[in-house]
Amino acid sequence: MTRHVLITGANGYLGRALVRRLLETMPAALYTLVDLRFDDENGDAAVASNVQRVSGDLADVAVLAQATEQPPSLVFHLAGVTSRLAEADFALGLRANLGASVALFERLRAQARCPTLLFASSIGVFGPPLPQSIDDRTVPQPALSYGTQKRMLEILLADYSRRGFIDGRAVRLPGIVARPPEASGALSAFASDLIREPAAGRRYVCPVGPVATMWLLSLPRCIDALLQTVQVAPDRLPRSRVWNLPALRASAADVVQALGRHLGRDVSALVDYQPQAALLAQFAQWPPLDTAVAEALGQQHDGDLAQLIDHALKTA
Amino acid sequence: MTRHVLITGANGYLGRALVRRLLETMPAALYTLVDLRFDDENGDAAVASNVQRVSGDLADVAVLAQATEQPPSLVFHLAGVTSRLAEADFALGLRANLGASVALFERLRAQARCPTLLFASSIGVFGPPLPQSIDDRTVPQPALSYGTQKRMLEILLADYSRRGFIDGRAVRLPGIVARPPEASGALSAFASDLIREPAAGRRYVCPVGPVATMWLLSLPRCIDALLQTVQVAPDRLPRSRVWNLPALRASAADVVQALGRHLGRDVSALVDYQPQAALLAQFAQWPPLDTAVAEALGQQHDGDLAQLIDHALKTA
Repeated sequence: MTRHVLITGANGYLGRALVRRLLETMPAALYTLVDLRFDDENGDAAVASNVQRVSGDLADVAVLAQATEQPPSLVFHLAGVTSRLAEADFALGLRANLGASVALFERLRAQARCPTLLFASSIGVFGPPLPQSIDDRTVPQPALSYGTQKRMLEILLADYSRRGFIDGRAVRLPGIVARPPEASGALSAFASDLIREPAAGRRYVCPVGPVATMWLLSLPRCIDALLQTVQVAPDRLPRSRVWNLPALRASAADVVQALGRHLGRDVSALVDYQPQAALLAQFAQWPPLDTAVAEALGQQHDGDLAQLIDHALKTA
Repeated sequence: MTRHVLITGANGYLGRALVRRLLETMPAALYTLVDLRFDDENGDAAVASNVQRVSGDLADVAVLAQATEQPPSLVFHLAGVTSRLAEADFALGLRANLGASVALFERLRAQARCPTLLFASSIGVFGPPLPQSIDDRTVPQPALSYGTQKRMLEILLADYSRRGFIDGRAVRLPGIVARPPEASGALSAFASDLIREPAAGRRYVCPVGPVATMWLLSLPRCIDALLQTVQVAPDRLPRSRVWNLPALRASAADVVQALGRHLGRDVSALVDYQPQAALLAQFAQWPPLDTAVAEALGQQHDGDLAQLIDHALKTA
């Protein structure tokens, strides 16, 4: 039987890259892409006969029904609203990040096929005061509605998996670089701006200081990890069904310096630092990270800042 | 303005005792009691003019609207289905323990009064393999749908509290004794049966062995703790807004021995032990418990087994 792959949030930054890679590596599968809208109406994915696009809100029962009319055997659940939106519009965050996800899980349970499901969680499940170091056993204590909603889903996913309703895997994404500029992006979007803007020769006012530490992973390495995650045999997964993806830990000043080396010209004069107190505790003090579970599963970060910048700019 | 107190699950074992105590200590308040049904239609609470009863499912929007028509300033959210039911009927557990609670929280948020809300969570948020000891920092890793749903609510309550939508406090209840016999009780109900049945001179087949360890708290001490919890000033609460209630840790054999001493006759011959493997890991191996947060707030367990049995039998 032909494999049916469902991708929610398929028009997002991760979703578009994931779909491109899937169409290259699994061209014979059937794909259902769901998102509020699709920007590239004439892109490759739009014209492929094995790709169905469903435009609409997954929290809408009709949209969910259409997206799952053919039961999927593999699900990449990437859809959600960002940390900024979930904080600005609590009801929207609750509906998009919790309600729609529970509805999707319930629909998959009703279909009784136990699909493999990857849930894109986030390091936003950790909140300040952050501990001295973080590993896979660190207790998440979210301090944002976004992280709260992600954490609730992680816990629910473990229970659905225990009961055999889905074969779930939740991975916590660090800062994925370099995202394109977005009007309503993540509160942590500055990590991408810090690379993209000076690389394009534009001045950038960074909302965290030069010593701010971030956890970074390039888009290609992130897609590698997502694809690898759904191939892990269930008996190799932790009981919690959740782990932190590998990431390079770097300061803002380190990133700007590495960018300069990559470009062959110092770009530090393009960056002004105007730290915003509200961002610092949550987004600019990431401690050392131990990703033992991910590494045991063969997942890797970019290796060093030079490669991170190289990968990040290719996908910017 | 007269205080309006909302109690969900008001016809349950805890709910009935809590309402009795509230009517004694805060006779001037207005009370709205919600439950699927009320057994004692002619009880005191039924006839008091300051008590309104709402019969129905809190997950039903009309029932929720009726229960909150007058915005409450204090909420005891005790309603939920038991561990046995949530495991037997997944959809029911999800709707009753998660969906109805989220709907209640959303309703309170819409009313914008930031009521004090106590949520009755459970030690069922901890699952096997249980750690060597448990304290307020122990990471819950639920292994039942019931514990999963309770844990999700704890996390959500912290976020509602952080945002000022409610002033939430979640307390994890140990085994409360001695509950009456129930058709669809908690999986941990044997702790109550073990006291109630031999005390009544009846034989009892205990589904855990004599060395099984339990965490126990009598109903009167539990009600003390609930009433005390809603009086704690917000700045004294942990950021997580959740803690474990104090409990005596005792083995089944210890309980039977203490019961014999209390009754003045050895009842050990009335108890047969037929351990059920499915129960042991979750319900019969509770490790030493450190309840520092509760104790700092002045909450206490029964002191010793003699007093626990005394309190438990008074309310059996």
